[in-house]
Amino acid sequence: MEFSVRPEPENPHLTREMRGLDQNGEELQIRVVEERPLTIFLNGQEIVTVMTIRDHPEYLALGYLLNQRMLLLDDIVTAVEYDEDIETIVVRTKRKTDYEKKLRKKTLTSGCAQGTVFGDMMEHIDSVQLPSDAVLKTSWLYALSRKINTQPSLYLTAGAIHGCVLCEADCPLIYMEDVGRHNAIDKIAGYMLLNGVVAEGKMFYTTGRLTSEMVLKTVQMGIPVLISRSGFTAWGVELARQTGLTLVGRAKGKRFIVLAGEERIQFDADASEVAEAARRQRRGGSSAA
Amino acid sequence: MEFSVRPEPENPHLTREMRGLDQNGEELQIRVVEERPLTIFLNGQEIVTVMTIRDHPEYLALGYLLNQRMLLLDDIVTAVEYDEDIETIVVRTKRKTDYEKKLRKKTLTSGCAQGTVFGDMMEHIDSVQLPSDAVLKTSWLYALSRKINTQPSLYLTAGAIHGCVLCEADCPLIYMEDVGRHNAIDKIAGYMLLNGVVAEGKMFYTTGRLTSEMVLKTVQMGIPVLISRSGFTAWGVELARQTGLTLVGRAKGKRFIVLAGEERIQFDADASEVAEAARRQRRGGSSAA
Repeated sequence: MEFSVRPEPENPHLTREMRGLDQNGEELQIRVVEERPLTIFLNGQEIVTVMTIRDHPEYLALGYLLNQRMLLLDDIVTAVEYDEDIETIVVRTKRKTDYEKKLRKKTLTSGCAQGTVFGDMMEHIDSVQLPSDAVLKTSWLYALSRKINTQPSLYLTAGAIHGCVLCEADCPLIYMEDVGRHNAIDKIAGYMLLNGVVAEGKMFYTTGRLTSEMVLKTVQMGIPVLISRSGFTAWGVELARQTGLTLVGRAKGKRFIVLAGEERIQFDADASEVAEAARRQRRGGSSAA
Repeated sequence: MEFSVRPEPENPHLTREMRGLDQNGEELQIRVVEERPLTIFLNGQEIVTVMTIRDHPEYLALGYLLNQRMLLLDDIVTAVEYDEDIETIVVRTKRKTDYEKKLRKKTLTSGCAQGTVFGDMMEHIDSVQLPSDAVLKTSWLYALSRKINTQPSLYLTAGAIHGCVLCEADCPLIYMEDVGRHNAIDKIAGYMLLNGVVAEGKMFYTTGRLTSEMVLKTVQMGIPVLISRSGFTAWGVELARQTGLTLVGRAKGKRFIVLAGEERIQFDADASEVAEAARRQRRGGSSAA
């Protein structure tokens, strides 16, 4: 159950050994994360080209379209055709789709723009009802941080990558990484769709900043708790407060800050006990990620 | 000359005091960075909505259009009209423009997508010739890091923000910050256009990752050196090597790694002397930023 999907730092397709110089002018070799284009089609229509590590193109394509509300939950997906050679993936649905008009209007967002998603999500968001009985125990939060940050990952191996983890209580379930942090959350959305994972009882842990779009995506997916190592934007906090999302930021070692939905937090852990374990955590981190 | 443009952590429009709880359940107040939409028009056409701190809307709009190659260097800009109330800015040119077709095809990139820029930049990039006589002394690199990271900034005050700095030798000239890291580089491009600053002899320092798009933008602007605290992607390195850009990553304290254009580096500093100063630097940082 724990880490049903985990990062693959040993996968030779995801990193590359590169040669360079260090500060003393001495030769060194380091592992560098791959960044590849993937063009997503929905039926006959080219939707977008994303830059990705391309470890899970199917999940990414489905999750992207779902989070853009171009693919609907009751759509019947008739095929998902990935062609590595021409770097494309085609999602086919029973329903005829046409997003020509939608594609013309783009909103680029703070972290990593996701095109058309924004306006639509703002309209849709009022209809979402997050469960009021969801709980976040601080002991879970500390356990999740520890497990996620010590799990072998592309981040620890090569850096320059974002992670997003679907969690339940103190258990990290699906840990996706990608060069675009929104790809990581989209891949989780695609995984949930294909594997019938429900949002109920789930939480998100992300390495990225808590911007407006990150908050909207989480809310749209029906997930009531969003935790990050990184910091907040004011609009992200405002939207979390409006939609009833619990928003925890700057979660590093024993420290964290809750700026929305604090009524879900149960302070059951002794923060001082966490300090020692936290010192051993390898994952550094600035609040601008 | 040093910091002709600097961050404005004291500007009340750029951060907001927000109330929340800390890990002990105690109330606290923190400063959180603003994130606001700005819709950019070119003549009659709506181009994009970006999320920004909106400190320099004119520079951002001009730099965005320039870096997208929708505004050309020989275009005559007849007006730049910013309307705060409706969160829009209109750039007017003597030349008639129509990017309807271009706007339909989007490429979302790793860090922060910038829509249409990618394909066009790839085509344009072969014609760019970076100066081969440019030099990066390691003493400059250390001095720049120290000056930039100790300069009061929104990053130090509120976090969750990216910075980009135009530098010359050991002197940081233009330091822009933004919630979208591409906004920071676009604002510098806009500033350079309006103030007649040439690329010759300049370098970029960024807090963001060295992805393909970051490399392409730097090359397109004619700047031969790009330095970052953060890590690399393999494609970013590849493009830097193809275009002859000097690419320095993971520049923290005395350490750094050069993966492209190492022939421009002059190792004139004693790295061990830098270690002590570096320990006093406040700016932490992960390689996924």
